[in-house]
Amino acid sequence: MPIESAASRTFSAVFVVVFFLSSATAHAQISYTQQAGELTKKGLRELGAYSLLSELSGKIGNRLSGSPNAAKAVQWGNKAMRNLGFEKVHLEPVMVPHWVRGSVERAAVIDGKKITPIAICALGGSIATPKKGITAEVVEVHSLAETKSLGEGARGKIVFYNRPMDPTKVNTFEAYGGAVDQRSEGAVEAAKVGAVAVLVRSMTLVIDNVPHTGAMHYVDGVREIPAAAVSTVAAEKINSLLMKGKKVRVKLVLSCKTLPDVESDNVVGEIRGTEKPDEVVVIGGHLDSWDKGKGAHDDGAGVSQSLEALRLISSLGLKPKRTIRCVLFMNEENGLRGGIAYAAQKRSPAEHHIAAIESDAGGFAPVGFGVNADSVTFEKIRRCSEALAEVGADRIQRGGGGGDISPLANSGVPLIGLIPENQRYFDYHHSDKDTIDKVNPRELELGAVAMAIFAYELAQEGL
Amino acid sequence: MPIESAASRTFSAVFVVVFFLSSATAHAQISYTQQAGELTKKGLRELGAYSLLSELSGKIGNRLSGSPNAAKAVQWGNKAMRNLGFEKVHLEPVMVPHWVRGSVERAAVIDGKKITPIAICALGGSIATPKKGITAEVVEVHSLAETKSLGEGARGKIVFYNRPMDPTKVNTFEAYGGAVDQRSEGAVEAAKVGAVAVLVRSMTLVIDNVPHTGAMHYVDGVREIPAAAVSTVAAEKINSLLMKGKKVRVKLVLSCKTLPDVESDNVVGEIRGTEKPDEVVVIGGHLDSWDKGKGAHDDGAGVSQSLEALRLISSLGLKPKRTIRCVLFMNEENGLRGGIAYAAQKRSPAEHHIAAIESDAGGFAPVGFGVNADSVTFEKIRRCSEALAEVGADRIQRGGGGGDISPLANSGVPLIGLIPENQRYFDYHHSDKDTIDKVNPRELELGAVAMAIFAYELAQEGL
Repeated sequence: MPIESAASRTFSAVFVVVFFLSSATAHAQISYTQQAGELTKKGLRELGAYSLLSELSGKIGNRLSGSPNAAKAVQWGNKAMRNLGFEKVHLEPVMVPHWVRGSVERAAVIDGKKITPIAICALGGSIATPKKGITAEVVEVHSLAETKSLGEGARGKIVFYNRPMDPTKVNTFEAYGGAVDQRSEGAVEAAKVGAVAVLVRSMTLVIDNVPHTGAMHYVDGVREIPAAAVSTVAAEKINSLLMKGKKVRVKLVLSCKTLPDVESDNVVGEIRGTEKPDEVVVIGGHLDSWDKGKGAHDDGAGVSQSLEALRLISSLGLKPKRTIRCVLFMNEENGLRGGIAYAAQKRSPAEHHIAAIESDAGGFAPVGFGVNADSVTFEKIRRCSEALAEVGADRIQRGGGGGDISPLANSGVPLIGLIPENQRYFDYHHSDKDTIDKVNPRELELGAVAMAIFAYELAQEGL
Repeated sequence: MPIESAASRTFSAVFVVVFFLSSATAHAQISYTQQAGELTKKGLRELGAYSLLSELSGKIGNRLSGSPNAAKAVQWGNKAMRNLGFEKVHLEPVMVPHWVRGSVERAAVIDGKKITPIAICALGGSIATPKKGITAEVVEVHSLAETKSLGEGARGKIVFYNRPMDPTKVNTFEAYGGAVDQRSEGAVEAAKVGAVAVLVRSMTLVIDNVPHTGAMHYVDGVREIPAAAVSTVAAEKINSLLMKGKKVRVKLVLSCKTLPDVESDNVVGEIRGTEKPDEVVVIGGHLDSWDKGKGAHDDGAGVSQSLEALRLISSLGLKPKRTIRCVLFMNEENGLRGGIAYAAQKRSPAEHHIAAIESDAGGFAPVGFGVNADSVTFEKIRRCSEALAEVGADRIQRGGGGGDISPLANSGVPLIGLIPENQRYFDYHHSDKDTIDKVNPRELELGAVAMAIFAYELAQEGL
């Protein structure tokens, strides 16, 4: 054939292929957007996540690892997955720490003859004080480095960590990250310089009288000393007395202790993929909570959203090509044992995880997702996110994930974290204020819908 | 000179100019982003909007047009602007409607011999019932068209509008827009077919016992009949009785009335532009509120944010090239008289508005702005929005503005509306629940900062 004709044919063929491909892509995108619309309508009409959260947080309540409530939560999760028609529902046992707060925790500021009770709570993992408490002079610091520099000036004293979360950070998680070393490592550094206990300003941006607990830890070879959070009001009070040049003593009484590890479980269920069932997208949150409040935002939200996301996909009759698995992790708060056990679990050699999505940043209106993956994978994931615009959750940014899914990164699994609006999270986090009345049913549901939309498209497209 | 050399010179010159321009633009953008960062830090550290809102909503309370509280709010706004050091602070008088709720409003469902009180409130603008009330059979409808089609079936009855806001809409303002004709026009349509009163399901997505008021209107030549909102719980109750085939009667007693118009004011103050003072960027919200709740989100938020935005710009020592004017409008809720008067006000012939920004969608975390302008201007405005990423408010979309600034559109002024996260707005809107405890100080402040960032860049760049 003449060259020109061949070129023309080639051109036509290329044109047809390109046209076909781009129209197929366009068609797929329209279809994802339509399905996202259906998931959204169903979600907002039925508000299933809030119903689930009402059971978990409203009826069972808080559920610290090893507690009877945590065991109830496992049974509840198991039953919920079966009721919702998930496949291969099972428990994956894991040994978890068992710390208990005990019945007594109190403190008072002693300013000369004036004794004023202050709002405190033991930090998770702390040892108790002697029964009669510890009474000692308070020395205020603002960093671990400042504690180190106290040297002998700390001996026999209570070190009071009072660096606030930085209110000028727009992202409150960044403000938290910039202050939380005082809570997690403060006791170790203080013990090294001879302190007898630590008080830590609560990790919150609100000035009120509610203490916020959270994990602290000890290290081998350093003496264990008791550690408690003080409310921000109490922190300001101690600070104001010290600013006046007064010698401030605090009496601290804690009765918390660590008991032997307890057997608990991750709860696992899925929708099997129709074409590539061994390729798995995980969605999850953590079933345990602290023992203050009711674990509504942290992380009843993530648990109820993960269950609801899978329910929405299933009840719309969508049949993902790859498996979408819902995992309710145990023990994120004080050990991450569930996340570690899930990643280490022996499974069929053919099976591998293509992505893991966690919701553990509160049940507020979703704005997007954070993605922890190499550049090529990040771009592929980003291309699966367009339909998230349906619920305003299409800001896809680099970095993110979640505590429970983080051990999967060792096997190269891309990690994805739901990003909700974050201004109110630390008002409630780890405190008596983390109750279901702080959760808006529609905001919670939109997060569930966003997870469903994203998980479904990833399960269809693969990575 | 040789042609080649001339071309080369031209190329060099173009290159230099382009380089200079792009580096100048880059420099300006860095500078806007830096200033946005400073505005953000100052705003989040000082939380000035919340302090202002505490005075307006917390101390003065609600402030319906014509009421003593509205007069107090005008004086407060005037004083606040002077205290904050604004220039050319003045009042612009405007006559406003004066509707009062009266001391009595109640209703009861009569189901045979059973009389059950239900939660209602008069709609703004409604006439009273006779003192002894109106007792009549209820007929339920779901649209104005359905009312029309009742014909003689409505004579002597109370028409009950019970079409809910569509919960499947992600954007709650869209859901509101799809239901609110029942409230605003329901009485007119019902009167045309001989009804004696109307009840309207409250405009909210929550099922609770709190009625939500709002504007209704009459038209010349159609009989005026009383109109009240019923709580969603009451609406569901009436509906469930009717569904059972029962004949339901309601007794409605209202004592509201419209008094003669009252003189009130818009409150105006500004930072004069250093280079083009006659080019004005307006920022504002409305000072009046309904008489239920305390007008915290609607629109104490917009008022306090507008004041705070100008305070932030001023107190950082920024000197905008063009004037930024803060306008606290009167009477958005039931007349828009302030907005109309502001647009009609005779000013210096040289002066013109280059843009107007309103905050009247609640004091929640800002996500972006809606812009009502021609395509060319829209693009110019969009280019001034990059620095808004500092506070996560950089979603710029077509369409938007605000009631008070809408009359400026007649003179071709581009209208810009702050878009906050919107899921909770109608939980509180126009009801006893619109109080300051529903406002998060940081979310409110981020809206103020977003307005400051945007207004400042527009005032620097012009349009």
